[in-house]
Amino acid sequence: MHPVAVVNANGASPIVFVCEHASNNIPNMYHELGLNAADKISHAAYDPGALGVLRCLVNEFDAVGVYGTVSRLIYDCNRPPEAASAMPAKSEKIIVPANANITPAERDARTNAVYVPFTNTLADIIAQKGGQGIVITIHSFTPTYFDEPRHVEIGVIHDDDPTLASACVTELQGDGSFVCEINEPYSREDGVAHTLNLHGTKNGLQNAMIEVRNDLIATPDDEMKMGIYLAQQLRKTFKSLGIDLNEVSA
Amino acid sequence: MHPVAVVNANGASPIVFVCEHASNNIPNMYHELGLNAADKISHAAYDPGALGVLRCLVNEFDAVGVYGTVSRLIYDCNRPPEAASAMPAKSEKIIVPANANITPAERDARTNAVYVPFTNTLADIIAQKGGQGIVITIHSFTPTYFDEPRHVEIGVIHDDDPTLASACVTELQGDGSFVCEINEPYSREDGVAHTLNLHGTKNGLQNAMIEVRNDLIATPDDEMKMGIYLAQQLRKTFKSLGIDLNEVSA
Repeated sequence: MHPVAVVNANGASPIVFVCEHASNNIPNMYHELGLNAADKISHAAYDPGALGVLRCLVNEFDAVGVYGTVSRLIYDCNRPPEAASAMPAKSEKIIVPANANITPAERDARTNAVYVPFTNTLADIIAQKGGQGIVITIHSFTPTYFDEPRHVEIGVIHDDDPTLASACVTELQGDGSFVCEINEPYSREDGVAHTLNLHGTKNGLQNAMIEVRNDLIATPDDEMKMGIYLAQQLRKTFKSLGIDLNEVSA
Repeated sequence: MHPVAVVNANGASPIVFVCEHASNNIPNMYHELGLNAADKISHAAYDPGALGVLRCLVNEFDAVGVYGTVSRLIYDCNRPPEAASAMPAKSEKIIVPANANITPAERDARTNAVYVPFTNTLADIIAQKGGQGIVITIHSFTPTYFDEPRHVEIGVIHDDDPTLASACVTELQGDGSFVCEINEPYSREDGVAHTLNLHGTKNGLQNAMIEVRNDLIATPDDEMKMGIYLAQQLRKTFKSLGIDLNEVSA
């Protein structure tokens, strides 16, 4: 299977929604990485609910969606090849046996099989936006982390330029439907801004990462409602920033 | 929200895939039907995984997909208005408080709000196939039922004419990847063939219902793999029946 999928490739919006952790697919050649059945379908292997939210946002904006079709435990497409966490041996409490002692040759092979086509496809799509794209990545996080409950429900994370993320948090907090914080539950200091940096910041494009607590997007209906809600908040956000999505679209 | 959604409306295939139980959405006006949070996201409210399988099948065949966007506990679109089970007061062990004493006026209101647009949309799409459509409904079922484990993994159910369902079961059993039975875990005697009958049989079209055990389609990846697998088996099925999907397409 090709490691990257594109939804609504000809979408007219300048926005490109990205979900690096959409799938828990582990191709047969990796022998399930030594994971047990429960861990293979856990949040360690992917971001539950994120793909459904992305599909809805793509639909709401007539945007392009790009998502990974391979588990982040094979290769985490939100990490550069040089990061150890690109092929994590551990995720929260879950051990990934086959990632404990990866040889340099195996790292190269996975990078070429997964990361290279993912990042090249995304780069091509953003290039088609002619310097006027907007990059928004969609993730989900767990309600607890090492047994501690997380009270934040939606986090918005920025790379170098906080403009889009800050404006979005202002709208979300003003609306008040969910507990929203900037740079929670992660920030770029945790290494989660790779896609934003490479495809957004380095192209001079507005960018932000949206993290949704996965208990809020546990069914197709909840995914859709969250997608529609985020679309509403993003429309207000762009308006507040004076960004006309029609004006900048290709 | 409109109670019915169409995927790939201009798909060239004669096949129309239908998922009546895609969503657990309960519009606000119904006050969650008195359900608790766990029941609201349970299999009683929808068929987990079925929508993802439908999306994949639509993609594999360039087919049209039609799915309901409202929980079957509001109105089960695979039931006619006269069936008590169209607005069930109980589903396996789950009680639906607001459905215990529905007035005739409320029944009519839900029928008009959900069933009528759903069935009319589906009828219009099938009419566009010019008498050459094929109707396949996609459902999921639970691994246990009243505490008894279900060993069947894929069931194929027929209405009056068993041709398509029988041929499909022959392929699935011949392949042997999953435990497959005809008319399991339900049959039309359980009232589950309404869509097949109304939109397939009465139009003289081939039709069948595919039921997948929901533990096999618990993640986007598993949904996709099952969709690709079912597409392979359906291609063999149509070939065995001498049905050329290209020839009969519009």
